[in-house]
Amino acid sequence: MGRRNFIKGMAAASAAVATPALALSEPAKGIKWDKQVDIAIIGSGFAGLAAAIEAKRLGGNNIEIFEKMAVYGGNSAINGGLFAAPNTPLQAKEGRKDSPDTMVADQLKAGRGIADEKILRHVAEHAMEALQMTLDAGAEYHPYLQQLGGHSVPRTYQTTVSCGGGITQPLLKECKKLGVTLSNRTKFEGFLLDEQGGVEGIKVRRGYYFGKEDGGNLEHIKVGKGVIVATGGFAQNINLRMAQDPTLTSEVGCTNAKGATGEAMLEMFRVGAVPVHMAHIQSGPWASPDEGGFGYVSNYSIYNFPHSIAVDRRTGLRFMDEIADRKTRADAQLERRDEQGNPNPPLMITSYKQSKQHPTAKKVLKYGVGWKFDSVEALAEHFGVPLAPLKQQIEEYNGYVKTGVDKQFGKNMAKAKGKYLEAPFTVVRLWPKVHYCQGGVQINPRAEVLNSMTGKPISKLFAAGEVTGGTHGVSRLGSCSIPECMVMGMTAARTILA
Amino acid sequence: MGRRNFIKGMAAASAAVATPALALSEPAKGIKWDKQVDIAIIGSGFAGLAAAIEAKRLGGNNIEIFEKMAVYGGNSAINGGLFAAPNTPLQAKEGRKDSPDTMVADQLKAGRGIADEKILRHVAEHAMEALQMTLDAGAEYHPYLQQLGGHSVPRTYQTTVSCGGGITQPLLKECKKLGVTLSNRTKFEGFLLDEQGGVEGIKVRRGYYFGKEDGGNLEHIKVGKGVIVATGGFAQNINLRMAQDPTLTSEVGCTNAKGATGEAMLEMFRVGAVPVHMAHIQSGPWASPDEGGFGYVSNYSIYNFPHSIAVDRRTGLRFMDEIADRKTRADAQLERRDEQGNPNPPLMITSYKQSKQHPTAKKVLKYGVGWKFDSVEALAEHFGVPLAPLKQQIEEYNGYVKTGVDKQFGKNMAKAKGKYLEAPFTVVRLWPKVHYCQGGVQINPRAEVLNSMTGKPISKLFAAGEVTGGTHGVSRLGSCSIPECMVMGMTAARTILA
Repeated sequence: MGRRNFIKGMAAASAAVATPALALSEPAKGIKWDKQVDIAIIGSGFAGLAAAIEAKRLGGNNIEIFEKMAVYGGNSAINGGLFAAPNTPLQAKEGRKDSPDTMVADQLKAGRGIADEKILRHVAEHAMEALQMTLDAGAEYHPYLQQLGGHSVPRTYQTTVSCGGGITQPLLKECKKLGVTLSNRTKFEGFLLDEQGGVEGIKVRRGYYFGKEDGGNLEHIKVGKGVIVATGGFAQNINLRMAQDPTLTSEVGCTNAKGATGEAMLEMFRVGAVPVHMAHIQSGPWASPDEGGFGYVSNYSIYNFPHSIAVDRRTGLRFMDEIADRKTRADAQLERRDEQGNPNPPLMITSYKQSKQHPTAKKVLKYGVGWKFDSVEALAEHFGVPLAPLKQQIEEYNGYVKTGVDKQFGKNMAKAKGKYLEAPFTVVRLWPKVHYCQGGVQINPRAEVLNSMTGKPISKLFAAGEVTGGTHGVSRLGSCSIPECMVMGMTAARTILA
Repeated sequence: MGRRNFIKGMAAASAAVATPALALSEPAKGIKWDKQVDIAIIGSGFAGLAAAIEAKRLGGNNIEIFEKMAVYGGNSAINGGLFAAPNTPLQAKEGRKDSPDTMVADQLKAGRGIADEKILRHVAEHAMEALQMTLDAGAEYHPYLQQLGGHSVPRTYQTTVSCGGGITQPLLKECKKLGVTLSNRTKFEGFLLDEQGGVEGIKVRRGYYFGKEDGGNLEHIKVGKGVIVATGGFAQNINLRMAQDPTLTSEVGCTNAKGATGEAMLEMFRVGAVPVHMAHIQSGPWASPDEGGFGYVSNYSIYNFPHSIAVDRRTGLRFMDEIADRKTRADAQLERRDEQGNPNPPLMITSYKQSKQHPTAKKVLKYGVGWKFDSVEALAEHFGVPLAPLKQQIEEYNGYVKTGVDKQFGKNMAKAKGKYLEAPFTVVRLWPKVHYCQGGVQINPRAEVLNSMTGKPISKLFAAGEVTGGTHGVSRLGSCSIPECMVMGMTAARTILA
């Protein structure tokens, strides 16, 4: 595994970087409307789709989803398909004690004091409803729960395809069935405002090709009841993410779909939305430098962290709680840089017996982004890890598996019970990739976008999902984005149609 | 010192909280101009005054400063008057080795990886020029340097009045002398934009009374060369600071002038400026809960920290490096909360012999926000500190003074040399107050405000000082704001008149 491949892997993720086009809002006065809809939804990920379905169920009509890309689903379609909810059927089956309070408490801890407790509570209390919406639409999940980093109990469902597409596809089908109008290659280009600065309509460009900003036809769409902006994060907007963190250059890998460039969020700031927590950009601590984007390793390692160790290849020793929250782990990995400041990806070591329980193990090995070793000696030789300390580390860790107490990093060993680390091993390399933007526009628990001068809702403007900011604070827990997107999308529809 | 007084102290700081008025930019097309200026400067603090003086020196003409409050100087006039610069006459006199590189390195460390190195370097390289501008205008400084938290060498000048007014007053006089037009009670109300979204003019309200948003007369001012926004931070805007950090309620003390409400910054976001680091709001670790605002204790403790200890009154023990950067210290103090989560202000203990070297010691004692004790026993009894551990702590600390090595917290003991802690003592109580907003609009090292969609400068729009974001990263070092404000103000003038 040379440095060349490493860099190749890093570059692949951010090859296609777009500069967002100039969106500009303007007064609606005197505009000739091309069309009228009741509810305009910008973006077709979890939040947009859930908003449309909920609006239809509440009797809404004339609802159109605008998606700038050719393919529906946005970044939601390519994430891990992990869905956290308290008090679910699987928790009942597995006998797990959980509650919205417990889920909120876990999230507040990761948020490091600045998360929005009200919104977190609202989401946790309605997460099961949202999960039910996906089940009703035909989404399929693994028959077991996972316990992701920072969660105090197993509460995470995962789609059988280990991918968000396992949710967006059924929801999309449901939208079509319910008669939601779906328009792809249609880019939001700005708001049309009434005289008080509220939203009266939107400008969209139909026949848009990503990166080609002046093609297609501009249309002015009058909006009867409300616009729901559900356009996701800005992890692929290099300028904007570097403004917040100069280290997040184009060289740094990114798990997001290439359309995650944030221009609708920027346009909301231009009509007075409050920018919140823009500086808090999350890197995924489960990603691999050996493949582009989210890839196979992310799902693989999310599943395997509870019963694996991550070691520094220079020492053979652990350096973190493998199921701490994402920020804690990403920071710990980034501290492994070598003396010249170059990435020094740690190794995640798993018993093959355990890793093969999840379908991603096969793919990781097939595509050469993971390796299988029959002995610790072979593993150590391949990666140049000092053998004696590594052997001792494994032995020590197995002691923690036995006692249930991790004396090194205080890892919760409940999910590791009986799962001793033993040959043959599977190994992947880890290095953080830009994954999620905690920042965005401020909303209230009714999904209303607030005006920065008055603190009151901007008329007819709603937002849901990653485009909003402040809900998670400094660090979002894994599998808490899908419930947030869906619940807040549903909430926007309810607020509009109440 | 009862809890009642404590809360009274906390509340005093934020008694006068204003909701910023609705500022709204609009197209300039068709506007009837009331007046034309070459350069419009919004705000009369360090940045605005330095910009005006520099513009005049470069041959600029028709320059007007707009100040919304009745009094000039803004928040700058009431801060500590601390000015960091490398390679100054006082450093030469004291034989201190320093350089812009060293100053930048100190700041990057406090910025925790996300500071803007280019701007920090630009400021450090021009800091002496800015200091000279204040000297030329007649500012007077103590004849010794201070070493503030996070600085690796003493490089901080302080005005003889221990207050920023010792700089703003001379600069203001200089502005008048140079023929700058000064307009107080004149509030910026929005930009007037050309067809490309650049700035063509501004709206101001003359005869404005703070908090009374509809009085006075609206004027449309055409701007020939540029607008420099130098309006400071938003620490007094409770909604906005709580959007970033829900714990910063109106109950939390604030050192800022009441006009620090941030509406010009919000308006820049509305014309497309990039919001950067809004989540990073700094609390001052040298403030006292026993008085409102910046008060006397802040200056007192900034001066005395190098040769003092801060102890938890419940244990009598130190809990931090007393000259770590501000965030490290504020976080350490906030962790002293009692079991119910109530503030538990630590005690700062200083030898009276040392504290009386600075003029604030007298005031702190006179106004009852500091106490003098003849013995450690009297001190311990007054505050209910366990005596034995406190005595041992003082003895241990005096060992560090002797050896020059702090084995507890790694404090740099250079400035404590020979300054043993001994009776009589002076004591103040510490609790952080909201002090400085690292967040604001993104600028480049030319002080140009960048457009969030294009990454290019917004035509004729410049910003300098606390209203800008990203320069300092997570935590700004003390005494680095005045050089930044002044250098970037001067830089804006140079860019405009180049």
